[in-house]
Amino acid sequence: MNPFPDYSAAYVVLRTTAGAEGFGLIFTVGRGTEIEVAAVRSLAGMVVGASVEELIADPGALARRMIGDSQIRWLGPEKGVVHMAAGGLVNAVWDLAARRAGKPLWQLLAGMTPEALVAQIDFRYLRDALTEHEAVALLRGGVSGREERTRLLLEEGYPAYTTTPGWLGYDDDKLARLCKEAVDDGYELIKLKVGGDLADDVRRMGIARQAVGPKIRIAVDANQIWGVGEAIAWMRELRVFDPYWIEEPTSPDDILGHAAVRQGVAPVLVATGEHVHNAVMFKQLLQAGALDVVQIDACRVGGVNENLAILLLAAKFGVPVCPHAGGVGLCELVQHLAMFDFVAVSGSTDNRAIEYVDHLHEHFVDPVRVSAGRYLAPTAPGMSAEMVAGSVAAYRFPDGPEWAAATAA
Amino acid sequence: MNPFPDYSAAYVVLRTTAGAEGFGLIFTVGRGTEIEVAAVRSLAGMVVGASVEELIADPGALARRMIGDSQIRWLGPEKGVVHMAAGGLVNAVWDLAARRAGKPLWQLLAGMTPEALVAQIDFRYLRDALTEHEAVALLRGGVSGREERTRLLLEEGYPAYTTTPGWLGYDDDKLARLCKEAVDDGYELIKLKVGGDLADDVRRMGIARQAVGPKIRIAVDANQIWGVGEAIAWMRELRVFDPYWIEEPTSPDDILGHAAVRQGVAPVLVATGEHVHNAVMFKQLLQAGALDVVQIDACRVGGVNENLAILLLAAKFGVPVCPHAGGVGLCELVQHLAMFDFVAVSGSTDNRAIEYVDHLHEHFVDPVRVSAGRYLAPTAPGMSAEMVAGSVAAYRFPDGPEWAAATAA
Repeated sequence: MNPFPDYSAAYVVLRTTAGAEGFGLIFTVGRGTEIEVAAVRSLAGMVVGASVEELIADPGALARRMIGDSQIRWLGPEKGVVHMAAGGLVNAVWDLAARRAGKPLWQLLAGMTPEALVAQIDFRYLRDALTEHEAVALLRGGVSGREERTRLLLEEGYPAYTTTPGWLGYDDDKLARLCKEAVDDGYELIKLKVGGDLADDVRRMGIARQAVGPKIRIAVDANQIWGVGEAIAWMRELRVFDPYWIEEPTSPDDILGHAAVRQGVAPVLVATGEHVHNAVMFKQLLQAGALDVVQIDACRVGGVNENLAILLLAAKFGVPVCPHAGGVGLCELVQHLAMFDFVAVSGSTDNRAIEYVDHLHEHFVDPVRVSAGRYLAPTAPGMSAEMVAGSVAAYRFPDGPEWAAATAA
Repeated sequence: MNPFPDYSAAYVVLRTTAGAEGFGLIFTVGRGTEIEVAAVRSLAGMVVGASVEELIADPGALARRMIGDSQIRWLGPEKGVVHMAAGGLVNAVWDLAARRAGKPLWQLLAGMTPEALVAQIDFRYLRDALTEHEAVALLRGGVSGREERTRLLLEEGYPAYTTTPGWLGYDDDKLARLCKEAVDDGYELIKLKVGGDLADDVRRMGIARQAVGPKIRIAVDANQIWGVGEAIAWMRELRVFDPYWIEEPTSPDDILGHAAVRQGVAPVLVATGEHVHNAVMFKQLLQAGALDVVQIDACRVGGVNENLAILLLAAKFGVPVCPHAGGVGLCELVQHLAMFDFVAVSGSTDNRAIEYVDHLHEHFVDPVRVSAGRYLAPTAPGMSAEMVAGSVAAYRFPDGPEWAAATAA
């Protein structure tokens, strides 16, 4: 479905008169970044000139204003280009707030009271599944162990899983080698792309299972290539290799389709989320019993605030969260949300892991650190969204020298 | 939800070397039109320089290329700004195709074979509800009466309903007067906005029902203002006035929510669609038994091709289509789809009507003609999307003289 990605980002920098900065980004896979930039520019008027104290005291108020804007919402509502732009700006405000507080975002969030966290969420369309009262109760249940879990997180990190071995196009030897290396590196869950050709998938799953043995989990990812019936038929052919989850078996909009796939492929789990465009969709995926793994993404929805809602919905329904990451900066940003979830919401890392892909981290000032199959908790203030100035200068579109060189070539 | 609309449009003009032109537009309510324009510009490269003969021979191929673009689709997929931009371009190609054929679009479509129509639709995510085979069978069932229905349509037109009386903010006398005028004008269905204040709604519904009597249908429209529970509670208070449908009771993404509302407010019908972003969502609304009235919109989804899919899904599930219109050009465009539906798909106008709002038609070269509560069938070639050149010159943003005058004021 996505044969030629050209990983890119619309990059947001908030500058303040006092000198502090806040950073956000919207990941893209190439063409269309200019549309996202246009959307950020359109929404920026709600941030530029605002009081820093007011913004960071209540990022949820900004989120409501931007997402609820009576004219812009016609282009959504709460989905696609304009929603992702709002999310990028909201995330930049949270980055600024965490920098000002001198804390990594996960720790800033984990230090907030249940009431303050719940006040950051727009419950308008969620109350049939989760009320403010239930959300406060969920968070109160997690208050007592917060310090112990913070200590554990700082000592041991958070589980990671790797997609490195599994891209389509690697030859069989490379696949087997990368699978073994992943296990040697400490990963307990790896992921393979599927859906190109059934015979290839059968052969590749066999090779991977052979390489990692029976105990390592192998997830598979179809990137939305199938209809509902195809997904079920295809996965039944792969079931003999004990795949752990099937990710994006069909359209991310197809809640009822995911529920049907889940019925049809059990005991294989169903995972989705990187393209699920808002909390209303996650709410229904959970209500419909359509998924076993919630894959939040830091840059798809309306920022930290909407992801708080999604984490609480997942907790209410008892479904683990395994964030989507990779791309540009997605690992850096989303780790904060998963770690907050562990410390203050779910209280557990069982059956949870953050996706990890080992590329493009060198462009970030505070890159993720992954060791022995675990993300180490970031300790620098902010949401880890700041890019290295030299990278921005070199790769800025269209005037960065790397673009000039590519165009000349 | 939308207190200050500033009706606008991103306007698409396809120019050909032979001189023929094709027109499309994406309706917006003001701010954000520039984002839509950026999206159209990004996608335009797939049209500019292409062979006119190839484009008009298979608009579905263009639709698949644009909607399936492996990089752009990250910003959707199939939703929001980029999807509406694709729809605007696809509609412009259909407009061009119909002009070249010398037929109004409804008639061009109604003259195509079932197989040719079905080939224009992307069934990837739809087959669990509607297969190509079933779609062909549905269309074949409608072939025999096409000529008779075409004659009827040209003679009698297609039912309209009016939202003119029902905007929030009119005083009670004006509401009563406009309701009576609508009945005098031949409308059998009118629509009122609700959701601001319950006591006001109760009073206004009482006035409207008193004004039109028991036989005229009164639909109400909440513009997504409620959560699921609120929608049910509010509508139960209005049920005594026999509202015909409740439109957009909650988030357009909330399929399961609409199903719950439908259960909760029966026998009041549930209608939605103007913000339903693609055929996968309509498919589920129908599968879940979540709505009684499908409200297609000409500019929300990926153009004529996706609306063909939605019309066929509605026919498969036996749910009537009452298109959303108003805004800028929505009446002009969508009438073609409803009339095609009557001639070639559903074969009926029972319980069907196209929304009508009497403004901004003067900016179109081939404006809708509504008389005695019915849309008269357009007979000029095309999709009626062409704007009057003087209007474009006067209102073009930001350099049109009307904008200069408004800015100066």
